[in-house]
Amino acid sequence: MSNHYLREPIRPIRLDESINLVGLVEQFRYTSYQSRNLYNAFHVMELMQTDPDRPIVFLTLAGAMVPAGMKGVVNEMMRRKMVDVIISTGANITHDVVESLGFFHYKGWPHADDEELRKMGICRIYDTFLQEDGFWKEQDVVFRVVDRIGNKACSSREFIYEIGRELRDRESFVGLAAELGVPIFCPALNDSDIGIALTKRYEQDRGKEGFRIDPIRDNYEIFQIFAKAKKTGIVIVGGGVPRNYGQQIPVIAEVLLKRPAKADMRLGHEYGILITTDDPKWGGLSGSTLSEAISWGKYSTEAHKAEVYCDATIALPLIVGAVIQKIGRQLDEKPRCRFVWEGDVLREIRLEK
Amino acid sequence: MSNHYLREPIRPIRLDESINLVGLVEQFRYTSYQSRNLYNAFHVMELMQTDPDRPIVFLTLAGAMVPAGMKGVVNEMMRRKMVDVIISTGANITHDVVESLGFFHYKGWPHADDEELRKMGICRIYDTFLQEDGFWKEQDVVFRVVDRIGNKACSSREFIYEIGRELRDRESFVGLAAELGVPIFCPALNDSDIGIALTKRYEQDRGKEGFRIDPIRDNYEIFQIFAKAKKTGIVIVGGGVPRNYGQQIPVIAEVLLKRPAKADMRLGHEYGILITTDDPKWGGLSGSTLSEAISWGKYSTEAHKAEVYCDATIALPLIVGAVIQKIGRQLDEKPRCRFVWEGDVLREIRLEK
Amino acid sequence: MSNHYLREPIRPIRLDESINLVGLVEQFRYTSYQSRNLYNAFHVMELMQTDPDRPIVFLTLAGAMVPAGMKGVVNEMMRRKMVDVIISTGANITHDVVESLGFFHYKGWPHADDEELRKMGICRIYDTFLQEDGFWKEQDVVFRVVDRIGNKACSSREFIYEIGRELRDRESFVGLAAELGVPIFCPALNDSDIGIALTKRYEQDRGKEGFRIDPIRDNYEIFQIFAKAKKTGIVIVGGGVPRNYGQQIPVIAEVLLKRPAKADMRLGHEYGILITTDDPKWGGLSGSTLSEAISWGKYSTEAHKAEVYCDATIALPLIVGAVIQKIGRQLDEKPRCRFVWEGDVLREIRLEK
Amino acid sequence: MSNHYLREPIRPIRLDESINLVGLVEQFRYTSYQSRNLYNAFHVMELMQTDPDRPIVFLTLAGAMVPAGMKGVVNEMMRRKMVDVIISTGANITHDVVESLGFFHYKGWPHADDEELRKMGICRIYDTFLQEDGFWKEQDVVFRVVDRIGNKACSSREFIYEIGRELRDRESFVGLAAELGVPIFCPALNDSDIGIALTKRYEQDRGKEGFRIDPIRDNYEIFQIFAKAKKTGIVIVGGGVPRNYGQQIPVIAEVLLKRPAKADMRLGHEYGILITTDDPKWGGLSGSTLSEAISWGKYSTEAHKAEVYCDATIALPLIVGAVIQKIGRQLDEKPRCRFVWEGDVLREIRLEK
Repeated sequence: MSNHYLREPIRPIRLDESINLVGLVEQFRYTSYQSRNLYNAFHVMELMQTDPDRPIVFLTLAGAMVPAGMKGVVNEMMRRKMVDVIISTGANITHDVVESLGFFHYKGWPHADDEELRKMGICRIYDTFLQEDGFWKEQDVVFRVVDRIGNKACSSREFIYEIGRELRDRESFVGLAAELGVPIFCPALNDSDIGIALTKRYEQDRGKEGFRIDPIRDNYEIFQIFAKAKKTGIVIVGGGVPRNYGQQIPVIAEVLLKRPAKADMRLGHEYGILITTDDPKWGGLSGSTLSEAISWGKYSTEAHKAEVYCDATIALPLIVGAVIQKIGRQLDEKPRCRFVWEGDVLREIRLEK
Repeated sequence: MSNHYLREPIRPIRLDESINLVGLVEQFRYTSYQSRNLYNAFHVMELMQTDPDRPIVFLTLAGAMVPAGMKGVVNEMMRRKMVDVIISTGANITHDVVESLGFFHYKGWPHADDEELRKMGICRIYDTFLQEDGFWKEQDVVFRVVDRIGNKACSSREFIYEIGRELRDRESFVGLAAELGVPIFCPALNDSDIGIALTKRYEQDRGKEGFRIDPIRDNYEIFQIFAKAKKTGIVIVGGGVPRNYGQQIPVIAEVLLKRPAKADMRLGHEYGILITTDDPKWGGLSGSTLSEAISWGKYSTEAHKAEVYCDATIALPLIVGAVIQKIGRQLDEKPRCRFVWEGDVLREIRLEK
Repeated sequence: MSNHYLREPIRPIRLDESINLVGLVEQFRYTSYQSRNLYNAFHVMELMQTDPDRPIVFLTLAGAMVPAGMKGVVNEMMRRKMVDVIISTGANITHDVVESLGFFHYKGWPHADDEELRKMGICRIYDTFLQEDGFWKEQDVVFRVVDRIGNKACSSREFIYEIGRELRDRESFVGLAAELGVPIFCPALNDSDIGIALTKRYEQDRGKEGFRIDPIRDNYEIFQIFAKAKKTGIVIVGGGVPRNYGQQIPVIAEVLLKRPAKADMRLGHEYGILITTDDPKWGGLSGSTLSEAISWGKYSTEAHKAEVYCDATIALPLIVGAVIQKIGRQLDEKPRCRFVWEGDVLREIRLEK
Repeated sequence: MSNHYLREPIRPIRLDESINLVGLVEQFRYTSYQSRNLYNAFHVMELMQTDPDRPIVFLTLAGAMVPAGMKGVVNEMMRRKMVDVIISTGANITHDVVESLGFFHYKGWPHADDEELRKMGICRIYDTFLQEDGFWKEQDVVFRVVDRIGNKACSSREFIYEIGRELRDRESFVGLAAELGVPIFCPALNDSDIGIALTKRYEQDRGKEGFRIDPIRDNYEIFQIFAKAKKTGIVIVGGGVPRNYGQQIPVIAEVLLKRPAKADMRLGHEYGILITTDDPKWGGLSGSTLSEAISWGKYSTEAHKAEVYCDATIALPLIVGAVIQKIGRQLDEKPRCRFVWEGDVLREIRLEK
């Protein structure tokens, strides 16, 4: 009986001059607390990436990940076909566009003199600075894209794709996504500097028919991705609307397909990885467990799930880097998936080498 | 010189049989850490509510506040004219509607068997349970409202107002807000069960012109409230899109009014209260300081600001209750503000006794 | 079946001009997250204080509670016979002594210029300042007490009692405890300014027999309190050594009484209240659940337990204040317990009106 | 002027198949939030380890690090001469001894049935299990060591050294420390299973002169290490008594050497690294900033300092591993320091190859 409890001994960490990321992370399999959880996240990611059913992988991005240099990880995930769909806050998209326009984020410090920063036109993100000027340049991009699209209701996906095309920049995650065919959804595009630019345009164009964002169309589009996928997985960085939105997709499917998850306990994402610094005990969705989400039908009852409580700027590169070191070659041979849209209809998810 | 540092001594807390909320909170003025911060939040709220310039007060709601019984606090704030505009997650609106339809949230527990809950159609929010059935009933409300509105692009404000009118329920915060004329903005309405219902409708109505949500119209509307207000204040419960959206309003104004905050350091909210369990050190907007927001022009450099790090289900009732005990009569005599809309144009903010 | 899950509906908070602490806290019975947990802590405290078996109540104090004004709460608990034994960090005792010597703690602010503070002889505790001078005065008290005790091995309890007698100050928690007969244990007295003073004395007296602290004698003494008590309860403020030490007492009993808890699942504290801002997920004792402690035999399997995750400077006054408002009179009529020591032997726990 | 703020651009993370620990950590130099802080900690550790003045390095250990497999990191630090003195909770020592006696810690899970665990004699540490039996075996070791020492007042350092000699186990950190001459201080030895064993012995030996722990002697011994060292640095894992104790050493020196830090702003540790999941805003010492400690004279105003907020089971191996990869050879050639004691007097710190 105690065998049930006393099976796998903890093993002391071994360090040496040559150990690489996967060499450390695989040792975390036999440690405790959040390092073991980090291993679990790595393990679920490995399983998901090597699943012969080629699950469609959603990545949700909240928190100021681009200003922190994490677009490098996201881009590598796209290049390695580790992510098929991105759901992002408007801020990450905005900051990516601004970087693509030649502006930088800079190492700063917390507890700076924010009034002085204001006077100098420098915005602060905790320990990181950037010039306000970038946002004004970004407005021009938004306006050019709106002009090109013309009188039309767009999903955020379509709009961000057009922005990505405009950038022509493989260092930008928005630009790279457009080139590689990775759709980016931004469920609250209004809540960002891009949204502000669109508001200015809205004011200018009042009374006229014109460009508009249709957020419900986003729902319909992302639902179809889920419905057409053999399996799905989700990598959640932070919480907020991107997390809720990514987890809501199976619930949309439950409603639109009239397949109550209650009757089909396997409706839901088959893989779930959560990297967060929030916590369940405050009751908010952002910090809630993946298990809780099962009660809502958001994950399959059979889903592989892992949660790691750690700053994503540490955990994400470590996990993704370790997976690349473990199965990089397999990833390179993995077929890329292409989404074939006709207006708001997803005709096909095509697998391409 | 040391007088600069050693001015106000800490005072030991005194407790007795008769002390009320304000009696405790005012003692926190002379304690330390988060209790002192809670006093500071109380103090800023008192200043804001008694400012003769009648600032327009925004309340942003994230986290599952309605399932936790906090709609009672929000309703009391509306009745007492402590809040003029609400910015909410879709979830809080959804849970409020569901309660209004006769469903309850129930005391549950964490670490429940989520698969069993799923089988029984019970959804879990940390330590709180509710039946899934409520969401299906809510769909009917959404559909009725969509039918009534007809072929039109709405802001979330207009749509939620119509839902509130449909409910005719002064216990519901959405219903009470409709009756009292408190606009509710939901910047990411798509990201909620209401959004799911709208997606179902979108699918049914495909090809037809019809009802749609225009999130940029929301931006334009809320910008006008800010632009027409003499002063503004913001009470932030949790973070997420509601917080960012509420703080973004002055930035919209900066762009649309071409009044760079840089040149006018007083553009921005004049009062800011943050109740959160998040933290600045992870770099996300939700946990960032109000000071950081000054570097973005979101608050006036003269703003009264306070941050308290505490579960809002403890801090919010304590702060609001203490303010009511301190200045309840003044609140009752305060003029209510009415927003006079013509389509998407705010004609006037009218003050009524 | 779903009755099991759906029994007690959440109730919206009601606020008005007259509500007192217990009026709010009892409403938290029907809310969620940490407010409900705060009610639970209140409820367990009420049960413990009204238990006809008169449990001996331990209070463990970590974190800089005295500099934050919380000695007022501790003193009220002693006056109301809500606590019988205190286990404290050395710091809280030190700061209490310093206040008793006429020094104050002052309202300060975080992110002060710590070098300048250093130059001015001002020490900072987050947002609170105090003058270094107090510590030098405290040394004199320590030296006088050591002189009076003479050549003897003391428990920390005996030593702190003598300090309390020296202070003759009912506003000091150390002084009041001495007067009311509430023993204070400080398991790591060396780790404090008192310990530093004793080190200076150690150096001066090297080679001589003399005063010394025997921390194992503390263990033996506190074990006897547990062994002689009909029941015990524990109120844990923060974590650290005080928490571990308070929870370790039943384990000492298990070893010394050769009554393995394994064979007697009711060995252990019967009441447990935890107020903390730490969290279980990091694996440390400070943030661990009271349930985990059952696996160690630290609590009876029947124990009443509650955990609330909140800054103690908010939660402690609220809980204790609410209990006083609920059962103040009962507390006043409760017999005080007196510990009758003969050297290191506890002869009796005498109940006195 | 803006050059002051906008100097070092953030750089996107690059991942590939071959990157090792230092390859990732050095990239964190140009990211944000806690990953940049992790780099800072790495950088301070590198500086400290390569300082030609050969600083004496203290390592403080709180939290259940041994049960989590972290003794491997501690041991590697000792073998590489990265740490000269250890300050630990009693728990880490106890768990190390128990492992050395042939018992294991096992991978478990949170939310286990703690009553059942109790019945089976299994103790839980969050997600890790161990058998209670180990503690009984440990008692025998403690008793043997007490017998060997005989009638004497010991510092915890002397006592733990004797335990380490008894173990003859280079996999045990206590055993390895004894062999390598790394002193281990345990300021609250009473607060642990070793303390419980000593309590049993205390009861058995009552009335007789005998073995005893003198915690003030510890203070005197560790003070001398500080006083004789050219420079000192401290690596803080977690908080609690070990952290406070390690930071208190310069304050002891201030008092005993009558060299008020006020007059000598460089008295204090010259290097400080903090790895914690606690936070300054609760006011406790465990989560306080290293800057705050400057106001107390605990660090030199010139000290190199870094704080990283991350589970130590992730951050510690990553930081130490990266340092080893960067300067492993230098560490191997670094002289080991030997402490030459005569009773409680430190005669010399001898540097040996």
